[in-house]
Parts: sequence; C-alpha cells; structure tokens
Amino acid sequence: MLFLVRMDVHLPHDMPQAQAEEIKAREKAYSQELQRAGKWQQLHRIVGEYANYSVFDVDSNDELHTILSSLPLFPYMTLQVTALARHPSSIR
Amino acid sequence: MLFLVRMDVHLPHDMPQAQAEEIKAREKAYSQELQRAGKWQQLHRIVGEYANYSVFDVDSNDELHTILSSLPLFPYMTLQVTALARHPSSIR
Amino acid sequence: MLFLVRMDVHLPHDMPQAQAEEIKAREKAYSQELQRAGKWQQLHRIVGEYANYSVFDVDSNDELHTILSSLPLFPYMTLQVTALARHPSSIR
Amino acid sequence: MLFLVRMDVHLPHDMPQAQAEEIKAREKAYSQELQRAGKWQQLHRIVGEYANYSVFDVDSNDELHTILSSLPLFPYMTLQVTALARHPSSIR
Amino acid sequence: MLFLVRMDVHLPHDMPQAQAEEIKAREKAYSQELQRAGKWQQLHRIVGEYANYSVFDVDSNDELHTILSSLPLFPYMTLQVTALARHPSSIR
Amino acid sequence: MLFLVRMDVHLPHDMPQAQAEEIKAREKAYSQELQRAGKWQQLHRIVGEYANYSVFDVDSNDELHTILSSLPLFPYMTLQVTALARHPSSIR
Amino acid sequence: MLFLVRMDVHLPHDMPQAQAEEIKAREKAYSQELQRAGKWQQLHRIVGEYANYSVFDVDSNDELHTILSSLPLFPYMTLQVTALARHPSSIR
Amino acid sequence: MLFLVRMDVHLPHDMPQAQAEEIKAREKAYSQELQRAGKWQQLHRIVGEYANYSVFDVDSNDELHTILSSLPLFPYMTLQVTALARHPSSIR
Amino acid sequence: MLFLVRMDVHLPHDMPQAQAEEIKAREKAYSQELQRAGKWQQLHRIVGEYANYSVFDVDSNDELHTILSSLPLFPYMTLQVTALARHPSSIR
Amino acid sequence: MLFLVRMDVHLPHDMPQAQAEEIKAREKAYSQELQRAGKWQQLHRIVGEYANYSVFDVDSNDELHTILSSLPLFPYMTLQVTALARHPSSIR
Repeated sequence: MLFLVRMDVHLPHDMPQAQAEEIKAREKAYSQELQRAGKWQQLHRIVGEYANYSVFDVDSNDELHTILSSLPLFPYMTLQVTALARHPSSIR
Repeated sequence: MLFLVRMDVHLPHDMPQAQAEEIKAREKAYSQELQRAGKWQQLHRIVGEYANYSVFDVDSNDELHTILSSLPLFPYMTLQVTALARHPSSIR
Repeated sequence: MLFLVRMDVHLPHDMPQAQAEEIKAREKAYSQELQRAGKWQQLHRIVGEYANYSVFDVDSNDELHTILSSLPLFPYMTLQVTALARHPSSIR
Repeated sequence: MLFLVRMDVHLPHDMPQAQAEEIKAREKAYSQELQRAGKWQQLHRIVGEYANYSVFDVDSNDELHTILSSLPLFPYMTLQVTALARHPSSIR
Repeated sequence: MLFLVRMDVHLPHDMPQAQAEEIKAREKAYSQELQRAGKWQQLHRIVGEYANYSVFDVDSNDELHTILSSLPLFPYMTLQVTALARHPSSIR
Repeated sequence: MLFLVRMDVHLPHDMPQAQAEEIKAREKAYSQELQRAGKWQQLHRIVGEYANYSVFDVDSNDELHTILSSLPLFPYMTLQVTALARHPSSIR
Repeated sequence: MLFLVRMDVHLPHDMPQAQAEEIKAREKAYSQELQRAGKWQQLHRIVGEYANYSVFDVDSNDELHTILSSLPLFPYMTLQVTALARHPSSIR
Repeated sequence: MLFLVRMDVHLPHDMPQAQAEEIKAREKAYSQELQRAGKWQQLHRIVGEYANYSVFDVDSNDELHTILSSLPLFPYMTLQVTALARHPSSIR
Repeated sequence: MLFLVRMDVHLPHDMPQAQAEEIKAREKAYSQELQRAGKWQQLHRIVGEYANYSVFDVDSNDELHTILSSLPLFPYMTLQVTALARHPSSIR
Repeated sequence: MLFLVRMDVHLPHDMPQAQAEEIKAREKAYSQELQRAGKWQQLHRIVGEYANYSVFDVDSNDELHTILSSLPLFPYMTLQVTALARHPSSIR
C-alpha cells in the first residue's frame, strides 16, 4: 500500500553543528535501512529546498506512522501524507 | 532527469459522455505508450480524487512540456511540476 | 484501517431537480449499505454547509478509492482524505 | 452535541525534556479521564504529524471550551473546532 | 448557545430577476421571523460585500443546521460557522 | 458605527508568568471599562482558541484604532477589522 | 474617514458587448460624480489587472456601503474594504 | 525599468476553435512585435501549464499597463506583475 | 509613477525598548523628509494593525527600492509593492 | 535548460553583524562567479523585499540543486523553483 510523503526540514539555526550532524547521520542510516527493507521505496530531493518527496510501501496506516514518527529528524520536520491507489491506466 | 507531476482533472459537467469517453481512451493509450517508453515512470491515483501523482524521466524541460501539453486531457487539467534531484541518502 | 474524509458537494444550479433527487436517493442508499457493512463508520453533517465529515474503515487504499469513486455524487464533490492511526492515549 | 476538533502540537525545541514528559503525562491522564466519561468520544493520530483528530460530545459550547482550554498542552497547540450535526443519511 | 456565522451570497448572473427577487423576499421574511423569535440575534452587512455576519442563539448544533439549511438563499451561499463561548472578561 | 474585530493572542512561551498575569489583568480592566462605556459592545471567546470575536461601536476609524492599539495585549495579538453596515433585513 | 477599497472586475465572457459598454459607461459617470463630490478621493488602475485601488472619504460605514453597492459593476466585482486611520508620522 | 509578469491563460471550453485560433494568432503577432521592439525582453513557457513568465522593459507603469491590457488574450488571462530593481550582486 | 506599498512591522519582543524607540524615531524623521520631498505621497495607518498603506511617487523601480530598503524599520517589516497606473475614469 | 528561481532571505535578527557581512560577501562572490560562467543568467532584486528573481541555465536538475544548496545564504533562504520551456511565440 503506497503513500506519497513530502518532508520539509527546519533545523533551528542555533542547534550546535555537532548535534545536527549526529541527527543527520542517524537519519541517513535509518532511511537506508528502510530502503533496503523495501519500505521506503523512493527518496527524491526537491530541487532548491531542504525537503524530499518519498514513496512508502507499508501494510497499514499504523505502520507508516510508526516509521515516520521514528525518524530522527521528525521533531524538526513538517510532513504531508497522501494515500495512493492503483491507477487504471498504469501498466504496472 | 526526474519530475514529480500532480494532475487534477476537471471535466465540464455538460461534456457529452461519448466525448468524455473518447478523450479518456486516448489519454489512456497515450499514457501507456509513454510508460512503455520509460518516460512516464510512475502513475498513481490519489485516493478520493480525480487526480494523480506521476513521475516522469525526461532529457529536458522542453521534452517534459511537450509530453504534458500533448495529453488529451491537458485542456481540462491543472498541473503542478516539481523538479527532483538525487537525494544523498538514496541507495539507488 | 481508518481514514477521515471530508466531502463538499457542489451540484450545478442548472441540474434538473428530478435528476438531483435521483442522484441523492442513490447516494443515500449506497451510503447506508456501506454503513451497515461497517465500512462507513461515521457520517456527520458539517453545520451550515452542504458537506460532511466521515470515517471509513477499510483494508487498503485501493478499497477506499473504489468506495469513494463509486459514490453517485462523486463527480460533484471535492474530497479530502486523511489517513488516521492509533493514538497512544486512546483507550480503545 | 458533537464537535470535530483538530489539534496540532508545537512544543518549543528548547523545552527541557523532563518538562515535556511531565506535560504529556498530564495530557494523557486528562484525555483518558474524559474518554472514560464519554466526553472525548474519539481520538485518532494523524499519520505523519504530531496532531490528532478528535470527536467530543458535550452539552454546550461553553463546556467544550472549558475542556479544551484545560488541556495541559493547550498553550502549545493550534486547535480547529467544527460543529457537527446529524446527517440525514446516517443510520445511527 | 451562540454561533457567529458569515454568509456570502453568489447568485448566478443568469438567474431571472423575478426569481431572484422572489428568493430574496422569502429570505427576508424568514430572517425577520427568526430575529423576532430571538434565534437570529444579530445581522450585519459586511461593507462592500454581498455578505453578512450574523449571531445565532440556538439550543444545539442540529437546530442551527436546520435553521441555516432552510434559508431560501442557502443553495447560493457559502457559510462559515464559528462556535462562541462566554469570555471571562465579558460583563454580560 | 459598528466593527467586527477578531483578536488572536500569541504570548511568548518565555514570558514570566507574573508579567503575563499583570498584562492580562490590565487587559481585563481596560476591556470592562470600554464595555461599560458602550464602546466594546460584545466580547465572545472563540471555542478552542485563545482568541475572541468582538463588536465595537465607535464614532470613527481613528477612535477604533486608538482603542485597539491601547490594548495591553496589543503587541501580542493579531487583529482583523471588518467594517459593518446596517443590513436591510435587520429588524433593529 | 478614509477607507482603502480594492475592486476586481469579472465580467462574464458571454455578456453581450453592448450591455458591457452600457454598464461601464454608467460606472464611469457614477465614479466621476463621486470623485467631484470629494467622496471617491483616489482611483488607480492596478497594472496588468482589470482592478483598481481606491480611497474613499465618507462619514460612516453605512455611507460607504451605500456608495459601493450602488456601483453599476457591483454585481460583477469582488471588493475588499480596509479601514484607515491617521498615521502618527503623517505630515498631513 | 524591468517587470516580471506571470500570465495564466483560461480560455472558456465553449469558445469556438476558430475564434480561439484567431485570438492566439493575434497574440503571437503582437507579442513578437513587442519582442522585436525590445519591450518584451523575455518570454518563457512554464512547464506543464498554459502560462508564461515574461520580463518587460518599459519606461513607466502606464506604458506597461497599456501593453498588457492590449494583449488579445487579456480578457482570458490572470496576470501578476512584480517590479524589479537592480541587484547589487548582478554583474550586468 | 505611483506605487501602493503595504508595510507590516514585526519588532522582536526581546528588543530593548530604548533601541525600538531610537529606530522608530529615525523611521519617523526619514518618513517625514520623504513626505516633504513629495516622494511619500500618502501614509495611512491600517486600523487595528501595526501596519500602513502608503503611496509613493518615484521615477523608477530602482528609486523605490532604494527608498524602501533604507527605511530604519526595513529589517523588521514585510512589504508588498503594487504598481499603479492611471485609471481611465479618474478625473485627475 | 532554464529555471526561474525566487529566493527570499530571512537572516535571524540576533546574527552578529560581522557574521552576516561575511556570509553576504561570500554569497556575492559565489553569485558573480556563476554569472560569469553563464550558469546564473539573470539576477533581479524584487522591489521592497529582501528577495530576488533569478534565471539559471543548467544541464540538469542535479546541477541546479548543487548550485542552489551551495549558496552561502542557503540555510537562511526560502527558494521556489519553476522549470521553464521554450515558448512558441518567443523570437529567440
């Protein structure tokens, strides 16, 4: 079951750089683990913004919320979730 | 080069049904031809809306506009185009 | 799996009244059938508006889109879908 | 008398963690007490957001405001209240 | 129990003038009946707009929706309802 | 001459509580003085929000601005002013 | 007492040209009469739009609404009214 | 003196195709004449939309409005005008 | 060449009062100098807001930007600039 | 391949002036280097705002994101990117 998620990151300007780097490193590791598991199917940077569009493949709304709210950057992000369905013209 | 495109369809209520069906049939054929050619990489219905989120893989902005403005439903759609770039955490 | 759906109805002013009544009668029957089946769990009128907030319980995004796009009033409605998850403070 | 309420929580990033935990614990207890009393009928997490959609059953606008403004998280939330009425197609 | 209601009227330009006058006459009579009954406590024109701000005093959400959806101009209006409560600084 | 005013209060989270209480006490006294003088005709809490809808009766725009900009909470509020006129269907 | 008014004109595309010309001629005459009377103090075209920003000098909200709702183009315009007051830095 | 102008075209669906073609042909000729005269310095299609971003070089606001309001498509367009100034980092 | 400018002031709550007073004093002096020079033709307070609507008469976009970006309050303001042209119904 | 980019700068008020000057100096040098390389084709100040409209000529979305995210002011800016295509009426 697919969901499109837009994530916008807003790190406070006064966050110490070491702390920011540590959070981003954990975010990257967590993200790649989910990608390898097939849950985070796509991850694209939005040109010119500290933001991404992602596609997740999960079994339920609860699973998706658990994944998203566990993101190390979650407290610093605005997220928008859009439920996707099969399109009748899709060849897949 | 990837672009996310959201398409919202607004067919006039007074369009004869035969005309609507004919446009939709051409739209479907055109869409599937572009999917098979690898240009229209993803096509997802937005749940509850006569709308889709799509990902296109094109060589240039001009190619994308030519593809989109040739859609049989183009005169009846609102489109939003977002340029995508490689995300540093993507494993692809 | 629960979803909150807001539906706003916009019937064209020039739709013949008999046609409008016939669509609304089919909408009501379809809605009550889904309520009895446990799919359409709640249906509330928004005070002062020709609109409702509803909660659906479905197995997948595809099932929800099939239900919503089959609504007799679907061509005359704007819909907004919000995916819901279990709240940690809920006692249910 | 039912009301739909959307609550978005915005805790300041510099709030000490112990203080945040204490407020959230009081919020949870207060929420569950109201749920058990039948006043807070539904409580759903919005997927991907630190926010919820809730349904309250109260006797008056004053009672609802008293309940909401007494929430321990009230100073850190944005709330939107929508009055609900019986829908003529509802089977309940 | 008080509610603030904003009503914006949008009559179709092609409505015959006699029909428009007839609807407005019924709207006025209905409005004045509700004012005399104490239900429609205030009715103010918004300067420069075909719109009003009104205050209703009703016993329930259902009563308010019944009143509003019975307005002769209801099919041609956009309404926004805001629930009001007692303000602790009010001297009334 | 009537004006509808919506006031939204945004006190900084780091304002000392004693200072906040002192400002609110002055606000309340000032508000009640204006209510008794007939200038601040109505004052309603918006349910679920730290906000109010008020109706002022003043002789001029300048008088209204003087009143509003003298509110002790003025530096911490967002205000929206709507000029009201007599409605032809009003019985008052 | 001054008010800034923005007026956006939306003439239906199917209005016969003679009718449009007649309305515009009446609008112009009415506008110039009010300008000569000192009520309509300023009238500026917004560059690139079928719209204007105007400043009115009236004795009351009621007078302003009477003036604006009598505009021949009133049924085809969207108006926004902003109450103005004396600025403490103004030299006038 | 430079201005950025965004133009969005909304042709009515029921406009006869011959009329639409005639207007577009006049628009193109007029646009190219202004481009050759150096007034319309840039003209770019917005990808996926029946819209353009243009840069005009004019001597005054009045000249710009005269140019824009003379566009054959003007009655069918929404325009947004942004005044531009020299940027201190520009090398031109 | 006229421009309408809306200025909204947002002074940080933690700015020392002496500093705020000094900036406002310089703003007032600068504003009155420009008014006497005929550049800042009008300056009106927006009722209920720490904001103003102003009309400037300048020779070019560059001159206007130089004036506005030299305002002592410029770093604390949001500005919106609208280019104005002669209106065909204006008697001036 | 052209892109229109709008950049709005929001420097924190508490940033030390020396730091702000250093960032702006690097921004200017970087911008002029890209302008000389033909990548940053246009750079215009938006009148009255700490913002610019720019046109970039790049080979890919990835190149554009690399350029933009390397701007010294990037952490303090909001950016909006619009993909541009050849306009059929352009004479270039």
